[in-house]
Amino acid sequence: MRIARYDGGRIGLVDGEEIVEVTDLSPVPLGSWPPVTEIALYARFDQLRPELERRLATGARVALASVRLESPVGWPHQLLAYPANYQAHREEMNSPNRADKNGFFLKATSSLSGPRDPIVLPELADREVHHECELAIVIGRRGRHVSREDALDHILGYSCLIDVTVRGTEERVMRKSYDTFTPLGPWIVTRDEIPDPDDLDLWLLVNGEVRQRANTRDLLVDVRGMIELATSVTTLEPGDVIATGTPSGVGPIRPGDEVRIHVAGVGEMTVAVVQGRGGSNIAFEYAARTAAGGGR
Amino acid sequence: MRIARYDGGRIGLVDGEEIVEVTDLSPVPLGSWPPVTEIALYARFDQLRPELERRLATGARVALASVRLESPVGWPHQLLAYPANYQAHREEMNSPNRADKNGFFLKATSSLSGPRDPIVLPELADREVHHECELAIVIGRRGRHVSREDALDHILGYSCLIDVTVRGTEERVMRKSYDTFTPLGPWIVTRDEIPDPDDLDLWLLVNGEVRQRANTRDLLVDVRGMIELATSVTTLEPGDVIATGTPSGVGPIRPGDEVRIHVAGVGEMTVAVVQGRGGSNIAFEYAARTAAGGGR
Repeated sequence: MRIARYDGGRIGLVDGEEIVEVTDLSPVPLGSWPPVTEIALYARFDQLRPELERRLATGARVALASVRLESPVGWPHQLLAYPANYQAHREEMNSPNRADKNGFFLKATSSLSGPRDPIVLPELADREVHHECELAIVIGRRGRHVSREDALDHILGYSCLIDVTVRGTEERVMRKSYDTFTPLGPWIVTRDEIPDPDDLDLWLLVNGEVRQRANTRDLLVDVRGMIELATSVTTLEPGDVIATGTPSGVGPIRPGDEVRIHVAGVGEMTVAVVQGRGGSNIAFEYAARTAAGGGR
Repeated sequence: MRIARYDGGRIGLVDGEEIVEVTDLSPVPLGSWPPVTEIALYARFDQLRPELERRLATGARVALASVRLESPVGWPHQLLAYPANYQAHREEMNSPNRADKNGFFLKATSSLSGPRDPIVLPELADREVHHECELAIVIGRRGRHVSREDALDHILGYSCLIDVTVRGTEERVMRKSYDTFTPLGPWIVTRDEIPDPDDLDLWLLVNGEVRQRANTRDLLVDVRGMIELATSVTTLEPGDVIATGTPSGVGPIRPGDEVRIHVAGVGEMTVAVVQGRGGSNIAFEYAARTAAGGGR
């Protein structure tokens, strides 16, 4: 099953080139604030499944091309990320870290954006901003201290994720947390449709040229391991997203670029890159400016 | 005004030794999932203020001692933290980083716990777990690219926060993100009651002995600056929490300890430390175990 979010938070099931709306099955009405309509539905996915199947068979359909897809998760409880989780990427970055030794960090949940939203670059003229191609795990069931054996049962499904990163020496979490720096989509493919998440080809193109190509079998910490490790520290909730790490081939993106990500069996999306205004006030400039008397 | 959360997510106003319930003023009923009842109320705080004042004057009261206080924020959108934000703490840690140069990172929102919840230590026999005494900012109004001049208008209020940290070389975000590693409370004091957030004494005691004592005037990035800097990168939402950094004097806590934090004009809380089970599976052990054949 492919679950998408669109047109201001509506939830729908994608079937070929059509979509069937199921927003009304969430206990949280559309337009509520905080906007957790889809999270509430995802938490009940297993019990709603028979009704979702029925809607898919008999519900009203509209053309997928007529809607505007959004991030399939809009307001998650957490957005975890495993850095240095492919050996070849560790080598290209000369990174002393590795995910199986150093574990996970977090990105700002507000950095999530959808398949039709552009990546908005901050005004950092002297900095490179890089694309990172990743498989995303979306959690479906609450868990703490989840074993490897039970890990897949806690997954709702999978999605494509671009982890956008300003290179530099400031806090990495901050450099990865600009709004629009985590395009997610185009939808969630439920786990029953992915026989083995540790054998998925994924690739990323910039302006039609392949920049990254890998298979999740090369993850240092595999999908089950990422759930086990995360929940040995934190409680994962339905709707939480895990960015599983990027393979080698990362590189700069610039205004006007088109970034395409494809995860085999999951889907594909193409995201534009645009130059934004502001956002240059990351710490190195803050320090310089405030030293000149603008603040403390 | 002092806003507390208690007895399974109820919201109340604290007046001396009594509390007046106002849960019904939230548009999200108690018992909803995700549990965002208080976030929805905080987002409407300004418009609800006249009614909150009326309740405080005329509402039914119960003894504060008869309720169980919880974290005043249970399910925030983000929990930001500014590391190395006091010079003396930078020196004791030999840290090359500084908040005004390196910016912020994030803690897991699920690490939040309340003033009556113990800090639960993971089974990491060879590791020190440290207390860090901090002022917390709770956001009341959505913002991106907020200026220093407007920053205080985005604050709902202030609270006491203990940033608990496993020392080690793994991802710092992970070492700070264990469940119960961010006690917050005992309530939120609204910003109108704090004339100058950059002149607040704060201190922390372990078993009655003073370990940390400072004043927020020594912050490298001040309260307005933290809002300006955070929103140059990310969108802050009502209910978001900012841990403003710890002064010097951090040190180990052990099972059986009692940790007391006090922020002048805000409040005080005393939290127990207990030994938990599990949680030892952070990455350094994960790597060793999986190398032995337990997984990848």
